[in-house]
Amino acid sequence: MSTATIDKSQQTHFPPADSRDRAKNFVRQLQDEICTGLEELDGKAKFQEDNWTRPGGGGGRTRVIRDGGVFEQGGVNFSEVWGDSLPPAILTQRPEAAGHGFFATGTSMVLHPRNPYVPTVHLNYRYFEAGPVWWFGGGADLTPYYPFAEDAVHFHKTHKEACDKHHPEYYPAFKKWCDEYFYLKHRQEARGIGGLFFDYQDYRGKLYGGPDPNGDAAKYSDRVGEISRNWEDIFAFIQSCGRAFLPAYLTIANRRKDMEWSDRERQFQLYRRGRYVEFNLVYDRGTVFGLQTNGRTESILMSLPPLTRWEYCYSPEAGSREDELYQTFLKPQDWVNWQG
Amino acid sequence: MSTATIDKSQQTHFPPADSRDRAKNFVRQLQDEICTGLEELDGKAKFQEDNWTRPGGGGGRTRVIRDGGVFEQGGVNFSEVWGDSLPPAILTQRPEAAGHGFFATGTSMVLHPRNPYVPTVHLNYRYFEAGPVWWFGGGADLTPYYPFAEDAVHFHKTHKEACDKHHPEYYPAFKKWCDEYFYLKHRQEARGIGGLFFDYQDYRGKLYGGPDPNGDAAKYSDRVGEISRNWEDIFAFIQSCGRAFLPAYLTIANRRKDMEWSDRERQFQLYRRGRYVEFNLVYDRGTVFGLQTNGRTESILMSLPPLTRWEYCYSPEAGSREDELYQTFLKPQDWVNWQG
Repeated sequence: MSTATIDKSQQTHFPPADSRDRAKNFVRQLQDEICTGLEELDGKAKFQEDNWTRPGGGGGRTRVIRDGGVFEQGGVNFSEVWGDSLPPAILTQRPEAAGHGFFATGTSMVLHPRNPYVPTVHLNYRYFEAGPVWWFGGGADLTPYYPFAEDAVHFHKTHKEACDKHHPEYYPAFKKWCDEYFYLKHRQEARGIGGLFFDYQDYRGKLYGGPDPNGDAAKYSDRVGEISRNWEDIFAFIQSCGRAFLPAYLTIANRRKDMEWSDRERQFQLYRRGRYVEFNLVYDRGTVFGLQTNGRTESILMSLPPLTRWEYCYSPEAGSREDELYQTFLKPQDWVNWQG
Repeated sequence: MSTATIDKSQQTHFPPADSRDRAKNFVRQLQDEICTGLEELDGKAKFQEDNWTRPGGGGGRTRVIRDGGVFEQGGVNFSEVWGDSLPPAILTQRPEAAGHGFFATGTSMVLHPRNPYVPTVHLNYRYFEAGPVWWFGGGADLTPYYPFAEDAVHFHKTHKEACDKHHPEYYPAFKKWCDEYFYLKHRQEARGIGGLFFDYQDYRGKLYGGPDPNGDAAKYSDRVGEISRNWEDIFAFIQSCGRAFLPAYLTIANRRKDMEWSDRERQFQLYRRGRYVEFNLVYDRGTVFGLQTNGRTESILMSLPPLTRWEYCYSPEAGSREDELYQTFLKPQDWVNWQG
């Protein structure tokens, strides 16, 4: 299906012959499972599906839910694409891929609930092959509008459990990476309470590179060691993470979805959604990758909220719940050991 | 006031000794004049002013109008900043400025009216000095939500008259540059009906470079000739352009501000405002410059609309006024010779 092939002579730790199909089947199945779970939660709306093809190679299926019982708007995307060469931003990170075709498959999701007490949430798991290199990336992170420590603890603990089944260093490394990646430098704010984020996971086993001096989180650094693992190990880990999403999120959404809210909470939610827009359009690598590779714009920008507002120089009232969000929840915290 | 100085030995066409003060005084006075004219139009709200200083050097005054008779939200900013070096994106365009301090002053404005029949409008005029180089940049462009050809014609004709007083090549070159600059590649749409845009105007007299193959509109190309002019000529041109704004916009706003509108027009306006956000956060050089130079975030993002919405796969009904906007007004047109 693709012109890109792994050059097996270049490495000892190559993927299995059916790596692309297995990765693709998993992310597509994850899209199915998540959509089923979310429709059950929503109780009213159903996902509508668009199938599309990409002129440069490949395609996908975009599913959108709107005007639901819980979700004002949300989308879960699956794609499988290939082409002649990766965009420059990725080649800088993986120069070995230069001159080779690439294959990429993944699922990504953003949900914007109507009730301001239900957090917005994002998930993405992806797999790349290009010439001699392959890697997995992904993660999930939560963006609450109101501060509930038990929700942040539950989201992190559920993902930590998924990680711990595979390696004790995964959660601390990828939690930190998430805090650093989902950061709005121009606001000096975290996007939310974080979760997991990782990229370029391959047999070389470097877990966490931290941001390099140019602000790019994807480069390896001396700060991390290596662990021994192969394609199967990482694929198994990805599956555990992906399947941690529904237990992590449904518990939180069910706790919050019937709480009463007023215009005050709604206005704050609309204001905070502006930060989501700012992050995705200014910083997000997936969005930039999509726009650079002439991706399907409606599927890429499906992550943007249904309604958003900006207000010049807004600042929450000291001591309010909105202020608590800023003071505590928009800064990295050790949520799994939280003693609130 | 600044550590940057023009090295007069490096060029024959240097600016007058008081160039910085004159440029600054002009853009600051333009801010005053525009605010006065807009308050009169609005009839209800007044601009509120914030004075701020920039840690790296300089400062500004930001003026915001909200919940007015005409304007839902809008801002007019003045700034005068200096520092040790220009950001990389500008140095790529003006390598002569490398290793030198810089001085920059300008005024910028974005207005978001409430009535969907009144267009959103943007203006920016700016002046830079850095080592051996100096230049003016700026322009104004109109973003209507509903298609009124007479408004587009008036906006363009008023700016053409201001240009024609200085050089007959100005309007055609800068109208074209505007069409190319305010273009959303990922949507394949113009931001609005354009106006004027230019950058790097100096004694070298290159008027229009067009986008280079990398998509940067600021590089000179062989497609344009040179005209003879000096600092005074360009400064006089900038003043004419800046002072064309009120006559251009007030006529249009007065035509439209009392037209009745319903939820249909409001929803379309909110949707189209999303494109303004996408352009400013993904493509706009002024926004990127501001964020790169640790500018004042609230002043930079003052351009974003008060309320915005995104809708997956929206498409206007064929033959509707919304469709006419897409078919005719979001594509470059020869508005001064329009025979609609």
